[in-house]
Amino acid sequence: MGLFRKVAVIGAGMTRFHNRIHSGKGGRDLFVEAVLEAVDSVDNGFDMREAEAIFVGNYSSDCFEGQGHTAALMADWLGLNPRPSIRIEDACASSGVAINMAALAIASGAYEVVIVGGFEKMTGKETEEATEILAMAADSLYEVPVGFTFPGLYAAMATAYFDRYGSTWEELAAISIKNHRNGALNEKAHFQSDIMETARRLGERHNMTFRDELDFLRSPLNPYVAYPLRLFDCCPISDGASALILASGDVARRYTDTPIYIHGLGQASDTFSLHTREELTELRATRVAASQAYKMAGVSPRDVDVADVHDCFTIAEVLATEDLGFFPKGQGGKAAVEGRTSIDGERPVNPDGGLKAKGHPVGATGAAMAYEMFKQLRGEAGRRQVEGAEVGLAHNVGASGATVTVQVFGR
Amino acid sequence: MGLFRKVAVIGAGMTRFHNRIHSGKGGRDLFVEAVLEAVDSVDNGFDMREAEAIFVGNYSSDCFEGQGHTAALMADWLGLNPRPSIRIEDACASSGVAINMAALAIASGAYEVVIVGGFEKMTGKETEEATEILAMAADSLYEVPVGFTFPGLYAAMATAYFDRYGSTWEELAAISIKNHRNGALNEKAHFQSDIMETARRLGERHNMTFRDELDFLRSPLNPYVAYPLRLFDCCPISDGASALILASGDVARRYTDTPIYIHGLGQASDTFSLHTREELTELRATRVAASQAYKMAGVSPRDVDVADVHDCFTIAEVLATEDLGFFPKGQGGKAAVEGRTSIDGERPVNPDGGLKAKGHPVGATGAAMAYEMFKQLRGEAGRRQVEGAEVGLAHNVGASGATVTVQVFGR
Repeated sequence: MGLFRKVAVIGAGMTRFHNRIHSGKGGRDLFVEAVLEAVDSVDNGFDMREAEAIFVGNYSSDCFEGQGHTAALMADWLGLNPRPSIRIEDACASSGVAINMAALAIASGAYEVVIVGGFEKMTGKETEEATEILAMAADSLYEVPVGFTFPGLYAAMATAYFDRYGSTWEELAAISIKNHRNGALNEKAHFQSDIMETARRLGERHNMTFRDELDFLRSPLNPYVAYPLRLFDCCPISDGASALILASGDVARRYTDTPIYIHGLGQASDTFSLHTREELTELRATRVAASQAYKMAGVSPRDVDVADVHDCFTIAEVLATEDLGFFPKGQGGKAAVEGRTSIDGERPVNPDGGLKAKGHPVGATGAAMAYEMFKQLRGEAGRRQVEGAEVGLAHNVGASGATVTVQVFGR
Repeated sequence: MGLFRKVAVIGAGMTRFHNRIHSGKGGRDLFVEAVLEAVDSVDNGFDMREAEAIFVGNYSSDCFEGQGHTAALMADWLGLNPRPSIRIEDACASSGVAINMAALAIASGAYEVVIVGGFEKMTGKETEEATEILAMAADSLYEVPVGFTFPGLYAAMATAYFDRYGSTWEELAAISIKNHRNGALNEKAHFQSDIMETARRLGERHNMTFRDELDFLRSPLNPYVAYPLRLFDCCPISDGASALILASGDVARRYTDTPIYIHGLGQASDTFSLHTREELTELRATRVAASQAYKMAGVSPRDVDVADVHDCFTIAEVLATEDLGFFPKGQGGKAAVEGRTSIDGERPVNPDGGLKAKGHPVGATGAAMAYEMFKQLRGEAGRRQVEGAEVGLAHNVGASGATVTVQVFGR
């Protein structure tokens, strides 16, 4: 796969991800907020009306808010009529796919500049109903009727993984600890306290004290959600939105001296249901999408300086860091235990806190990953900056891996 | 807007659209059926695995079937893994937009051959609930809470139109009569009897006789749904799917000696709610999208030999034939009365029966229009063939016109 021309990110914005602070807002309010921040971020100034089309990743405002047809809604609320508006829905990879589609639209010659982003307003529903809405991204014939929701599907993968590689839950805990530590450095994150701070706060309330993170994570205050996954192995339900402004390589430098190019992109599908996979300890679609993106960008996994990967559950980060080629199979969790994926490690993963701590308003996640790469590669990531990062990667997964996108970014 | 290369349709298929015959099937079964027919239609043979990506237009299997993430589902059921799968949702224009996105993806250099289509399985819900699900494509803040569903929104447009142009309901009836006459010639249509046949059948059951179509359409057997729109002014709720195989201009002739090129395409948005429109008697997005498509194709409205336009309600066909430039404002209904849009008229519109008689499984409609143009321009439309048709147009509308796509097809 080769594109007829280059595409670059020239601006990026996102709301804070959170479960309460957006309670008075709808998805439309969140999306507009993210786009306005992206517009303001363009170095040489940007009039929103220069955008020729708008791509919106959104999983299910249909069920969360009773509102379909959300791309046209956003075009209207942004004052972008009559520009074309396109909604993409590919489960939790909705805005990862939207970025790829927006990039192809520019590469086709149709547009020079477009807006792409995503949003999800999830907290209008109680947790149980939200879990059911999310489960609609799994198979309504073969998975949901037997009681599977996503914690269960990923728990099945974790159990298979432990069995195959002799790994233990402590490796998953290391990922949770790292991502909460990173989230504490990110002003846009849903959770901004590290595990020890959380342990002290929750401990006080329950007259308990904890010596260290693992002590807390093994306690009843971190109950099982779906064995072997505990509460702190699962990302939260969040509201939020994210947006990018993309431009063709031909015009990007009119808007900024430091565009961040999408040097490579990939997308792949896998079997829809887990029970038809040959292998539960890897996401094949990650391997295929990454291989496309690496090839297009002309890089190898070892060239990646910083990555945002899809850690909807801690086991998902283990699989991702292996399937992306950062570590051999069976070593992803151990790499986290050894600090190799920390911000100051050899291969920083999820410096923004990941889905675990940053939050996961599902339609917004893919574009929020690209937002992070934009900040990191421009050296604008503040306290969570990965020093000298030149090549970044975003990895967005839909459902239990039936859809995966990968983008490789660089100066 | 200019694309870096041409895109052609090399195969097309669709299920019959119907409200009962698909009762044992899900959306996945319908979509697979349509794709298999499209694959079989390729003149020189086609192995489905030659397709490099799949684009799926689908409005809301989320709410109709409790199933989201449907593009990945279809990729799996078609055996297309690990190829990328992309779901597009833009209300009733979902597969019209999907065609445009698939065409841009090919024009970008990413793919040579892709599958694109759409589906909707609507009859699992009772009519009232289906109407509510469809209304989610209108504004959940400003339209739905005050009682608007789509019959009401289009009825408001009809009333404004009658007021502005002095037109009457009889002009709408002429469109219903024409489209049912055309549907009777289409073996894929939901309704395959003309109005007089229906009048005789329903009349017998109610001990009533009718002299002509208008006599029947004015009777209590054609009750008001939303004044001035009666039952036979409204398209039915149908199940169905449609699919195309698209190829780059560089490879299309490997597959067929008579590819049908997408010479022009366009898309536009309009205000999401009706109450913020400056004008209720036109769809501005139709005019903008058509002007893009005409310009790209290098044709004018008078060059169009046959068109499928979005007649979800009869008034919508009136507006479409005017906004596409076929007739002056105020003349669209009169043109139908005078037979100018009949199959043997000067500008045949909806020779397949349109949404009115062919049916409207919303996600499938845009690709079903392209299917009809593929058949018409290859001279394969059988009893409904428009003689000598060389330029065809498809016009797909989302909701009350907030999304519109137009494609111009030709040899």
